[in-house]
Formats: sequence, structure tokens, C-alpha cells
Amino acid sequence: MRGVIMHAPGDVRVEEREDPTIVESTDAIIRVAAACICGSDLWPYRGADDVHDAPMGHEYVGVVEQVGSHVKNVKVGDFVVGSFFASDNTCEICQAGYQSRCVHAVPMGALGAQAERLRVPLADGTLVATPAEPTDEQVRSLLAASDVLGTGWFAAVAAQAGPGKTVAVVGDGAVGLLGILAAKHLGAERIIAMSRHADRQALARRFGATDIVEERGDEGVAKIKELTDGLGAHSVIEAVGTQESMMQAIRSTRPGGYVGYVGVAHDVALPGRELFFSGVHLHGGPAPVRRFLPELIDLIMSGELNAGDVFDLTLPLEQAAEGYKAMDERRATKVLLTV
Amino acid sequence: MRGVIMHAPGDVRVEEREDPTIVESTDAIIRVAAACICGSDLWPYRGADDVHDAPMGHEYVGVVEQVGSHVKNVKVGDFVVGSFFASDNTCEICQAGYQSRCVHAVPMGALGAQAERLRVPLADGTLVATPAEPTDEQVRSLLAASDVLGTGWFAAVAAQAGPGKTVAVVGDGAVGLLGILAAKHLGAERIIAMSRHADRQALARRFGATDIVEERGDEGVAKIKELTDGLGAHSVIEAVGTQESMMQAIRSTRPGGYVGYVGVAHDVALPGRELFFSGVHLHGGPAPVRRFLPELIDLIMSGELNAGDVFDLTLPLEQAAEGYKAMDERRATKVLLTV
Repeated sequence: MRGVIMHAPGDVRVEEREDPTIVESTDAIIRVAAACICGSDLWPYRGADDVHDAPMGHEYVGVVEQVGSHVKNVKVGDFVVGSFFASDNTCEICQAGYQSRCVHAVPMGALGAQAERLRVPLADGTLVATPAEPTDEQVRSLLAASDVLGTGWFAAVAAQAGPGKTVAVVGDGAVGLLGILAAKHLGAERIIAMSRHADRQALARRFGATDIVEERGDEGVAKIKELTDGLGAHSVIEAVGTQESMMQAIRSTRPGGYVGYVGVAHDVALPGRELFFSGVHLHGGPAPVRRFLPELIDLIMSGELNAGDVFDLTLPLEQAAEGYKAMDERRATKVLLTV
Repeated sequence: MRGVIMHAPGDVRVEEREDPTIVESTDAIIRVAAACICGSDLWPYRGADDVHDAPMGHEYVGVVEQVGSHVKNVKVGDFVVGSFFASDNTCEICQAGYQSRCVHAVPMGALGAQAERLRVPLADGTLVATPAEPTDEQVRSLLAASDVLGTGWFAAVAAQAGPGKTVAVVGDGAVGLLGILAAKHLGAERIIAMSRHADRQALARRFGATDIVEERGDEGVAKIKELTDGLGAHSVIEAVGTQESMMQAIRSTRPGGYVGYVGVAHDVALPGRELFFSGVHLHGGPAPVRRFLPELIDLIMSGELNAGDVFDLTLPLEQAAEGYKAMDERRATKVLLTV
């Protein structure tokens, strides 16, 4: 089959890879319908994470082609959505809603979803079948649910976005934008997008942002305070992962408020004393997307949630390298690869 | 009047201080019945915080002697409990339960509660009157409520201690010990005290600890994991404030679990990547003790909560210097000063 390999930073190629096969009786093999390139794939692409001849991709939707003998929740022919960690969905951690930290979690990135086929471990726990064949538009939203929507949703939930709340969003990538959509859906009263790119501002407004703040760092914080009677936002979504973005998020939050952070931390060290006196709640990490999949699939299939708009570049799998380049150069927010 | 002055690290004296007077119409003057020495007073005593000729003390109970013209919730003769921040209890932050970060907050430490009399700003918001004259034993518990009990309680609430939960407590000072009492009262199933001092272990057990772990650092974490099916505790109370204790708390918590941290952070920097992948909830800071005072006063006055046992040394105010020394040398966990 064809699949993406990142040989080194900046060196992405689509090559022949061996077809996956059932290894464990709890595996499924899916024919990937669409996959995408993640903002987090840019860390190795830019050399910030080590990478060497690695299959890539951890966001996927597709059709079940084969199941192991112990798989009973999905069957051949089902259209399914998974996420970036395979999880059994039965352990104590999964049952508490933290499937991304399942005691048997398998990172899907290592298996490489930017490919024609994908082995999905722990298929019963990992995959959720759609109630019907999705339309092309629904496929796009379901693919978003696989990671960026699920992650933005988790961030909004972690930040306690809801009725009566002012939510600020640090980061205008796909996750930040879908964090806005999630906050809107969760009933937030006011949603402040921190963005300085006109195209992303427009999408932010379409997803529900009521205010745009272009300033960053201390100036951005001052602007958020100005918009919130000097107190700071009730809820702040952090979707970047740098020292500056984390501090911007913490400082934009009022005492007793909530920061939901989902940007994968790179070179971040939180100053204990400032954090202590900030009095904020801090929660985040790799999103337990699986927790939200049933709800998100329902909302997408019933037409209540259109997250597919976040994809602003669609390319065939063979042109994956161009997709990485476009995201790296910020010509695209989020790239969908058709397979 | 007589009152404690810390002239420099290690140099504590009881001296004549000017009697406080009503400055704002929202002030009250109380005759202090009892005050105490706080673990956090040891930071300046040991030179970790700057100090120069400072009045000391921020934990107090006493009788109202005089009120400003706008005070209406407490009256002369009331026995009252306050906490270490004066707060208006009406602003948006107070109403959300974060009185220690009131927009008009006044740190009481600067006013010096280790003294015969104390000016309490924002008396209507800050002070809570007891429904009756407390007994001597109740006075001890009420004094604990003023800070260490209120802080331990906040930590237990922040850590989501409750039915079915396993709670680990890092730190066996007064706050950690009263965090155990709080977790017990909140219905925690299992409470693991991390302590290596026999006397504190005994009090921990009396307050509700079901297990004792003597190991610290990585070994302590391993022990907590061993006691919790390899997962970590649901809830962890951090009551020290060092890098080691914070990392011990975070690493002892299961993914999706809660850390309630109340040790005043000193030289702490939390590694972003580890925190991200830990998946824990982190909440803490200066405890909004005022939020809990009405409930704690009820529990103490009805005899359901006996927190006064945390005081293992009682001295007259005049011997405050000996109290500081005893706490510094760990001969006492918590010192009560009678006035």
C-alpha cells in the first residue's frame, strides 16, 4: 500500500509500505477514507522532535476491512472513527474518561494513519461506528472529530466553558478554532479568539467567536483583562504549547478560573510561585478524544456540528509532502488527505 | 499593646506596638483571644523570604471591640473568626468562592495578628461570628479554621477528595494533617499520609489516615502506585511547596486525577511536558478560607470537627520567640499563642 514516511525533518515522502495485518485478536484493519496532517506533525517536521524514517499520521476515518477474532463492537463494512490513542475503554482510567491514558494505550502515530490501510489495536475500545454511511461533508467533520475537534472539545470542557462564561482562546490553529466551536456549542456567552491572521479570524467568527484580540503576550493579557472588567476570562483554552502561550493563558484567567491546555508542551517550565498566586485551575494533556466520540458523531451525523470547515486544503495522499509544506509555511491551517 | 515583631531572620521579639485604630469605616478592631505561628512564618524566619522589622501573624480569633460606621454584619462583643486575607465577600471573585483573591483583598500578615489587638479591614466580608461563646477547646479548633484547617480543607476540596476516592497527602505539617481530617470528613475511602515522624503519623491516623508511607520522592511515588493498582491516587494534597513535594504530588496522581496544592511555592518550576502527559488536574494557591468558614464554624460549634488537636504547643504571646524556635526545630507542629 501507499503511505507517508518522514525520513528526516522536512523530508516527507509517499512510498510503498507493507500492508498491515491482524496481529492481535483484538485488532481491526481499516481502509482509510481520509486522514490528515496534524499541527503536532510539524514539531518533527521542523526538527523540534526527533524523527527518522517514521510512518506518520494519527487522525483517520475509514471502513472496517477485517477484524480479529475477539472484536465484537465493530464489523466489516462499518464506517468508523478512531483517535490518536488506541484504548481498551474498559480499564479504570478509561472508565473515568481518560482513554488517552488507558493502561493499555497504544499511540496510533507509530502505526501511520497517513496511508491506505491502518491496523487499529483494541478495536472494540478504540473505534466508534457511525449509525449510517456519512456524506462527503460529514466525512470531513468526522475526520476532525478524530483529533482536532475532539482535542478542542476536551480543552473547552477542561476550561469549563459554558453558559454565562467568557472564554478566551490562545492559538488560532485547527485545535484553537475548534475549541471556539466547542465553547460555542457548550453555551459560552462570550468567546475571545486571540488571532492575528485575517483568514483564521474569519473562521473563528464563523465558529462562534464574539471578539478578536490581535495582541500577544503581556499586551494580549492586558486586552483580555480590559474586556473582562479587569478580572480575566473565566475559561481559557491554550492550544499552542509554548512558554509564551501557556503564560498568556494562565495570566488571562481570573482567580478561580480554568485553563484547558492541549498544545503539546515544548520547552515549557511553569513558575511555581506565579502559578500558586494565580489561583487558576489547570487541566489538559493529550485529549481523551474517545470520551467525546459518541457525542460528536451524533452531533455531526444529525447536522448540528460542522467542523469540516477547518480543513482549508484538501489533497490526495500522494501529495502529502505538499500538505506538510503548506502547513509549515502557514498557507494552510489544516490539510485533509483523501485516500 | 504587646505584639510580635520579626526584626530579621531568626530574630523574633514581643514588643510594645501602637494600638490599632479604626482607619476605614469598614474596619473592626478585635481583641485577639488566640493567634498562632504559621508554617509559612518559617520561610522568613529561615531567611527564604525577605523580612525586616515586620509585625507577624495572620491567624486569629477574638472578640470585636470596636467597629467602623459602615460595619453591620458583626457587632461589639461578637466572638469572630477571620482568615489571612481580608475580603469584601461581595465582588465577583469572592462570590465565585475565591475570597483570598478578592479585588479588594488585604493581606492580614502585614497587620500582625500575633498581638493583643488587630485591625481587620472589610470586617463585614472578612469576619464570621460564632453563634455562641465558644469553649476553650472550640477556640482552639476555630483558630485552626482561621488558616491551617481552612487551607487543608481547600486542598482536599481542590483535590476532589470524596466517597470512593483514595487520597494521598504530601506533607505532614499542620496543613497536611488537617487535609487528612478534611478528606475524612468529605468521605474519602482511603487516606494515605506521607510522613516519617512517629508523632505526626499518630495524629494523621487519629485524623483519619488509613495508610502511612514513609518513603519520599520517587520511592514515595512508587509506594503510592503500589497501593493503588499501579494507577496512582485519585486525589493528592500537596502541603509543602518545594519542587520535590510538587513533583511527588503530581507523580502520585493517576491520569485524570486531582492535585490540590497549598504549600506556598518556593523555587518551583513545573516541567511542562511532564505535566502535560500526566493528565492531572492542578488547582491550589492561597486558600479562600473565608469560603469555608461558615461551614467549619458550624461543624466545630456542633462538636463534629475537632481540629484543635493539631496544636501541640501552647504558649503565652510573650513567649512567641520560643514558639518560632520550636517550630523551626520541628519540636512542635503548630504553636498556639494565648493572648
